[in-house]
Amino acid sequence: MALQAIVLGSAAGGGFPQWNCGCPNCERARRGDLPSRTQDSLAISANGSGWFLLNASPDLARQIQQQAALWPRAARHSPIRGVVLTNGDLDHVLGLLLLRENQPLTVYATREVRAGLEQNAMLKTLQRFEGQLVWHALEYGREQELLGPGGEASGIFVRAFAAPGKPPVHLMRGALPSAGDNCGVSVRATGSARLVYASATSAIEPIAGELDGAAALLLDGTFWSETELPSAGLGRANARDMAHLPMSGSGGSLALCRELRIGQRWYTHINNSNPVLDPLSAEHARLQADGWQLAEDGLRLSI
Amino acid sequence: MALQAIVLGSAAGGGFPQWNCGCPNCERARRGDLPSRTQDSLAISANGSGWFLLNASPDLARQIQQQAALWPRAARHSPIRGVVLTNGDLDHVLGLLLLRENQPLTVYATREVRAGLEQNAMLKTLQRFEGQLVWHALEYGREQELLGPGGEASGIFVRAFAAPGKPPVHLMRGALPSAGDNCGVSVRATGSARLVYASATSAIEPIAGELDGAAALLLDGTFWSETELPSAGLGRANARDMAHLPMSGSGGSLALCRELRIGQRWYTHINNSNPVLDPLSAEHARLQADGWQLAEDGLRLSI
Repeated sequence: MALQAIVLGSAAGGGFPQWNCGCPNCERARRGDLPSRTQDSLAISANGSGWFLLNASPDLARQIQQQAALWPRAARHSPIRGVVLTNGDLDHVLGLLLLRENQPLTVYATREVRAGLEQNAMLKTLQRFEGQLVWHALEYGREQELLGPGGEASGIFVRAFAAPGKPPVHLMRGALPSAGDNCGVSVRATGSARLVYASATSAIEPIAGELDGAAALLLDGTFWSETELPSAGLGRANARDMAHLPMSGSGGSLALCRELRIGQRWYTHINNSNPVLDPLSAEHARLQADGWQLAEDGLRLSI
Repeated sequence: MALQAIVLGSAAGGGFPQWNCGCPNCERARRGDLPSRTQDSLAISANGSGWFLLNASPDLARQIQQQAALWPRAARHSPIRGVVLTNGDLDHVLGLLLLRENQPLTVYATREVRAGLEQNAMLKTLQRFEGQLVWHALEYGREQELLGPGGEASGIFVRAFAAPGKPPVHLMRGALPSAGDNCGVSVRATGSARLVYASATSAIEPIAGELDGAAALLLDGTFWSETELPSAGLGRANARDMAHLPMSGSGGSLALCRELRIGQRWYTHINNSNPVLDPLSAEHARLQADGWQLAEDGLRLSI
């Protein structure tokens, strides 16, 4: 059985273009010279009829509207059975609040990510009846079959692993960084090869064992360079301050993944400031020379 | 000076089509036979350069992308100066969390709506620096000039008035209904006529004095009939259970507004189940016969 994956969104937080950004990339996206991108999320399925989301982006309503596979097939229905959250960042969890209207769902999350969500009264919109949200602990290093809200098997197997990260900005005060803040997932269907999704990581070495041997990798492509935001006058933080390993440089993800055995290499969660968004840029050429591609909204993979 | 208004979204909560709804209307929207609608919100301006939002919809990122008037004009900039919230429903407030990235904003809300928002850790994403969010109390019956985050005048004057409603579902446990839960607003520019916006109300009589004399009215058009959801098998609640006065019937908004002096009559916040969404329906013909129209996303008004 093949694992099917649809890239619902391929942009970092804020999307592309970003609402208050007039940088050259965003201006080109507004003019239609570069493809717009919604915020990072993936849909996965083993049978083509039931789907799970890897992260729930704020753009989820638009993403569902653009993917017929996720459309209802009855007066009240959704092929979406549940959501796996890899961190508590708003660009990965806000979409959960869009999955309202009395639809039962399972949610897989670490204790830390769940606790962050539960600090919001808004979550009660998904607790209108007993069993509307069925929580499962996402456990590191152990393969779990994803289950629908009625406990039904999906044929999708997920192994989560800690990825170096940080708690989301809105939870940072008082919260010490924890291994449960941020993770990647290795996903397969029965008998299929593995897809690895790590859309936020500040280092490769601690997760290299999970990346090695993947048939397809979707990796954090937020920034090209460490000082990308300050250099462009778009912010003060460097890439690693935000727990994102840049692509370039001797310590960047291009170099660090070079020796790993990985099939398809895709960057996702791409920030609006990243020069690789221009397919004619020197940076994009370097990425391609290393065997990488940029994921785009709507990309379908069969593993 | 004219008041300019742009309808950013004209659908009720969940949008049109709604993610988990396979009703005939939603199916037609997915096929492109009926225009899709994002969730209810308006942008208003007196000078065409600074804009305020009336409610912040979960679809705000998409709405901004579709309206060049709201695009940035510098590397970090937005014409959006602030937001007026008329209740705490998720379809009216979630968009606030999309206005991230260190942009200062003013927010006008009643004490109740602000308190509901502050029950969410996520709001801290808009409190990254002192003065990022400048709150103003929305006071009933008093005209207030909307001010930008630096205190700058906008030339837009708003008078809020209580509209019969209820607290949002996620805040209902323990919260007694209060006059601050839900309001409408009467808006004008210096010397202009009035636009009245009341996108949720369970009665006309208590707000008739505000509606009377409006040059343009944007009114709650959630439901056509009291039993619309249960009749279609889409839910158990009647219209008034959800604090929405239906359009039809002797006690509906069409009848109750008939004797009021109102210029342009627009319905907005239209639910996916409402038969008026079909322009060839008998219900749509009755609405037109009474001098009403359906607001659509992108509609521009100059008052």
